[in-house]
Amino acid sequence: MKLLNTINSPADLKKLPCSVLEELAAELRDYIVQSVSKTGGHLSSNLGTVELAIALHYVFDTPADRLIWDVGHQSYAHKILTGRRDRMKTLRQLDGMSGFPKREESEYDSFGTAHSSTSISAALGMALAAKLKNENYTSIAVIGDGAITGGMAFEAMNNVGIYDDIKLLVILNDNDMSISPPVGALNRYFARLMSGKFYATAKNVGKTVLRGPILEIARRFEEHAKGLIAPATLFEEFGFNYVGPIDGHDVELLVSTLKNLKQRTGPQFLHIVTKKGHGYKLAEADPVLYHGLGKFSPEEGIKPPTGLKPTYADIFGNWLCDMAATDSKLIGITPAMREGSGMVQFAKDYPDRFFDVGIAEQHAVTFAAGLACEGFKPIVAIYSTFLQRAYDQLIHDVALQNLDVTFALDRSGLVGADGATHAGNYDMAYLRCIPNMVIMAPSNENESRQMLTTAFLYKGPAAVRYPRGAGIGAPVEKTFDSLPIGKGKVLRNGKNIAILAFGTMVAPSLAAGESINATVVNMRFVKPIDKNLILEMAQTHHALVTVEEGTVSGGAGSAVMEALAEEKMANPVLLLGLPDKFIDHGDVSQLLAIHKLDKNGIITSIQERFGKSADTCSIR
Amino acid sequence: MKLLNTINSPADLKKLPCSVLEELAAELRDYIVQSVSKTGGHLSSNLGTVELAIALHYVFDTPADRLIWDVGHQSYAHKILTGRRDRMKTLRQLDGMSGFPKREESEYDSFGTAHSSTSISAALGMALAAKLKNENYTSIAVIGDGAITGGMAFEAMNNVGIYDDIKLLVILNDNDMSISPPVGALNRYFARLMSGKFYATAKNVGKTVLRGPILEIARRFEEHAKGLIAPATLFEEFGFNYVGPIDGHDVELLVSTLKNLKQRTGPQFLHIVTKKGHGYKLAEADPVLYHGLGKFSPEEGIKPPTGLKPTYADIFGNWLCDMAATDSKLIGITPAMREGSGMVQFAKDYPDRFFDVGIAEQHAVTFAAGLACEGFKPIVAIYSTFLQRAYDQLIHDVALQNLDVTFALDRSGLVGADGATHAGNYDMAYLRCIPNMVIMAPSNENESRQMLTTAFLYKGPAAVRYPRGAGIGAPVEKTFDSLPIGKGKVLRNGKNIAILAFGTMVAPSLAAGESINATVVNMRFVKPIDKNLILEMAQTHHALVTVEEGTVSGGAGSAVMEALAEEKMANPVLLLGLPDKFIDHGDVSQLLAIHKLDKNGIITSIQERFGKSADTCSIR
Repeated sequence: MKLLNTINSPADLKKLPCSVLEELAAELRDYIVQSVSKTGGHLSSNLGTVELAIALHYVFDTPADRLIWDVGHQSYAHKILTGRRDRMKTLRQLDGMSGFPKREESEYDSFGTAHSSTSISAALGMALAAKLKNENYTSIAVIGDGAITGGMAFEAMNNVGIYDDIKLLVILNDNDMSISPPVGALNRYFARLMSGKFYATAKNVGKTVLRGPILEIARRFEEHAKGLIAPATLFEEFGFNYVGPIDGHDVELLVSTLKNLKQRTGPQFLHIVTKKGHGYKLAEADPVLYHGLGKFSPEEGIKPPTGLKPTYADIFGNWLCDMAATDSKLIGITPAMREGSGMVQFAKDYPDRFFDVGIAEQHAVTFAAGLACEGFKPIVAIYSTFLQRAYDQLIHDVALQNLDVTFALDRSGLVGADGATHAGNYDMAYLRCIPNMVIMAPSNENESRQMLTTAFLYKGPAAVRYPRGAGIGAPVEKTFDSLPIGKGKVLRNGKNIAILAFGTMVAPSLAAGESINATVVNMRFVKPIDKNLILEMAQTHHALVTVEEGTVSGGAGSAVMEALAEEKMANPVLLLGLPDKFIDHGDVSQLLAIHKLDKNGIITSIQERFGKSADTCSIR
Repeated sequence: MKLLNTINSPADLKKLPCSVLEELAAELRDYIVQSVSKTGGHLSSNLGTVELAIALHYVFDTPADRLIWDVGHQSYAHKILTGRRDRMKTLRQLDGMSGFPKREESEYDSFGTAHSSTSISAALGMALAAKLKNENYTSIAVIGDGAITGGMAFEAMNNVGIYDDIKLLVILNDNDMSISPPVGALNRYFARLMSGKFYATAKNVGKTVLRGPILEIARRFEEHAKGLIAPATLFEEFGFNYVGPIDGHDVELLVSTLKNLKQRTGPQFLHIVTKKGHGYKLAEADPVLYHGLGKFSPEEGIKPPTGLKPTYADIFGNWLCDMAATDSKLIGITPAMREGSGMVQFAKDYPDRFFDVGIAEQHAVTFAAGLACEGFKPIVAIYSTFLQRAYDQLIHDVALQNLDVTFALDRSGLVGADGATHAGNYDMAYLRCIPNMVIMAPSNENESRQMLTTAFLYKGPAAVRYPRGAGIGAPVEKTFDSLPIGKGKVLRNGKNIAILAFGTMVAPSLAAGESINATVVNMRFVKPIDKNLILEMAQTHHALVTVEEGTVSGGAGSAVMEALAEEKMANPVLLLGLPDKFIDHGDVSQLLAIHKLDKNGIITSIQERFGKSADTCSIR
């Protein structure tokens, strides 16, 4: 690491001759592999952008030039080159460095990213700001071929194209693979561009068919043709000056191309071709496997996990296959998260009924609505945080028309290492204000399967929100049992205090309830909420405690209080859940403990509120 | 109306010879003008689609063939031709016909629309359903040149393009004018396509430059060129077979073209050119003025309103100009709603700081975030219902980074004639669960101005939610007064009951409070909510009543209850607001009365809950 060790900022990088940048790239790549093998994190994407990160900081004057990494899980090389090499060992850990660009973390992180397709919009804002401030910096968006198909990237490009006096550069990092393999017409188009057949082929046709004076005329025709017939690429239709495709692992070519583009004004578009996992053979061979990962041996690679409990995504995937076998109307839809959502087997077994629509959450939901209109029963598998992208479609296209769409809402609640950008903390609040929605939260794996069945059989929009990762290890039955809509279940009868728990909070609540002899209820449904049971609990207990892995503001506990008000009850209520703030990355169990959502935390909160001996009189 | 009167379904239409369709179009156009002049509604857009609606129902076999009108405010001709001629007189009125396609209303309304850019996604769902069911119907999306720039339309086109065996037709209704004039690169592109210079020019070059045997070779080159160099249009890059542009007011040409397209398989794209307001001179001359309107005289046209109270949008527009004059960092952003949001004067006075980004809510919000990173103070003027489209961008790009963006949230609460699709009922719930947000609701026009100032001066994300139309007529001061963040104001002191009112509900609550001698508070802030004041009210009153023009589920009243719980209070609470259901169109005052949110309704609800003589003992 003799070169890398000298680089503590882009200024150090600029001191190097261009000729050693390739060597630096090799060191940097090796550093990333070693570092991620110890911390876990994203790998394939980061190995693909090593040369680009070097070239960008070598040519441009960051942070004066604004650099935005779309999605941002490919920003490790950027972080290392901008003074954060040593912090790599704290990656994605509590109080450690974020896995995504983050404005608070560094002035070099011009814009925080994590969700896809935001970079061009933000870069346009910065570019027009430069114009208004009469400053000369360049705003750069680096966006993948998956992310660029997200709708808002098009909205942004359409808007960019009308400004011919801004300093804005979009770099399409084309590795022909978003997290799942690409699925859209545009990917085919990029492949055509990349194959070089596009304009070059036409030129060859000219050369081989035409000779002598005819060739001369044809050349003139070709010139006309270039201007009139073929504005070369789709991106030129959008008003960009298109350059590329070029090899994104040729750092010297990148440097010279970027130097050229740096001088230009007006929207520039550079198309580079990279390979995910580049330079690390195991990742090159299986970039999906090496996309996001835990600790591993760089020499031996990832070992197949053994003896692990199934994740909630696994439970979903198994249920999906089982239910698909019994109901031919079942359709599975994912916005580019086949692997993450546990749909690999389903995609294999039921290719006709599996739809990966690309990074396109909005389209995914309204597409599902269209299928539901025709009597199919679509299941949209989507992360809680990404459903935010399709919120209007859920309201306007699904719920308003009361269409029979099931939402398998993965990664609800705390998400651990991904942190605040991926938080699934808001779904109970943002979903329960929408009429017609049914919302469930399973307390264990088997109940998750039951709830998926319940949602699927329910004739209307229904969501099952389940957490990231594994559950408590409950055995899962292969049957299709459905639950009565809107009914909770009393798990234990205690005294004075009734704990009404939702989803993942049922287990620690039960443990807490055992300790302090409180009644514990598994509420199961956030909506419709079990009013009768709440009334019964209110009538037979002095105080109610609600516990949820989600924001308290407008969340499930708040639904309990609304039910109390409607039932004309006014018991003391303690609302436990996640606080009204963005929660950074960290281990989920650590975060739960910090926010007092484990057994001890729940006990402590109850005793602080109602006294150690939670007897009748002391409760107010 | 001798032809139109015979048509009660598309079957009747099909009996006519093609030669009289032009005459029918004239009658239909006249019927629309007469009818809308009596009821109000959308005009310009509906006059633009008369021939298209006739041709579609003439050629295709609706409702077997699925017909989706994007946005849907251009569907009156379609409604009239599908058995709803007589219902036009009830348009947009309580219990009357919706102004948008609605599945409940007619089997011919294949998909409910109102928000932009949804049609291609839904049509793809239906087209793939046909394939799965082995049925032969065609799914048709009619989409305007404004709506097609919305991101989800691109997501859908990208996904459509990979299916070459579906029966799907996208019709681009290109009138070069969404509600506001168009603003994107694509509109320029459409103009180029329309000008006919695109491929035709190249052909002409060929003809004039080349002769004899050279011409022959060039023709071969041209064939190659067509396939290799120039896939003709952007839509062909997306995998469509592109036809057009053709005159969308030539009904016979439409019929013959559609007949041809009906036979084809694979994604078809028909580009038609129409004129908003076509055939009604006044609307042709000013299609924006005649976009959405009240009653008018067809002969005299719309008269300039006199003596009307300013709307909340006017208050916003005036404030925007005033504040822009004092602060050069102010930026105004609208997603294609310059007129509706009251930004016409600002756009004129501050063209450099006015950005109409097109129908692109997602981009609008992240673009604002980019500007805010650079020290500008962007104001995103957006309807409550359309902010749903940018929910993720608000969370992930603005609130998470705590960026200084102001949201001027127009048409919050009930929206009247537009109905459920445009309801601004959910914003308090979906916004208040997001950390860092400040949310205000003005009780009158002057307070709206004060709140806009407050939000603008506040260094972080803040929203002011105000209603559609005019307020109570409070005089508006020209000063810039800001309000203390998170503080409510006691308007009257009463006994036993404290009414905590939000926004538009302050006025009827005050009237109700006078009647029953209750304390009345203008809460002003939904977030941060005034906990101290709530505690004080809880300590000095037996019961609290919250009143809001928004859904009770997770709404402002629910925030009051959370505050009570946090303050360890357990008073009886009555939550008044909009019910947990989609509310159809109707006059706002009628709807408020129906939902007991006028003075009498509030009194009745309080007395039903707490007894006629709301004395201490009877309250429980």
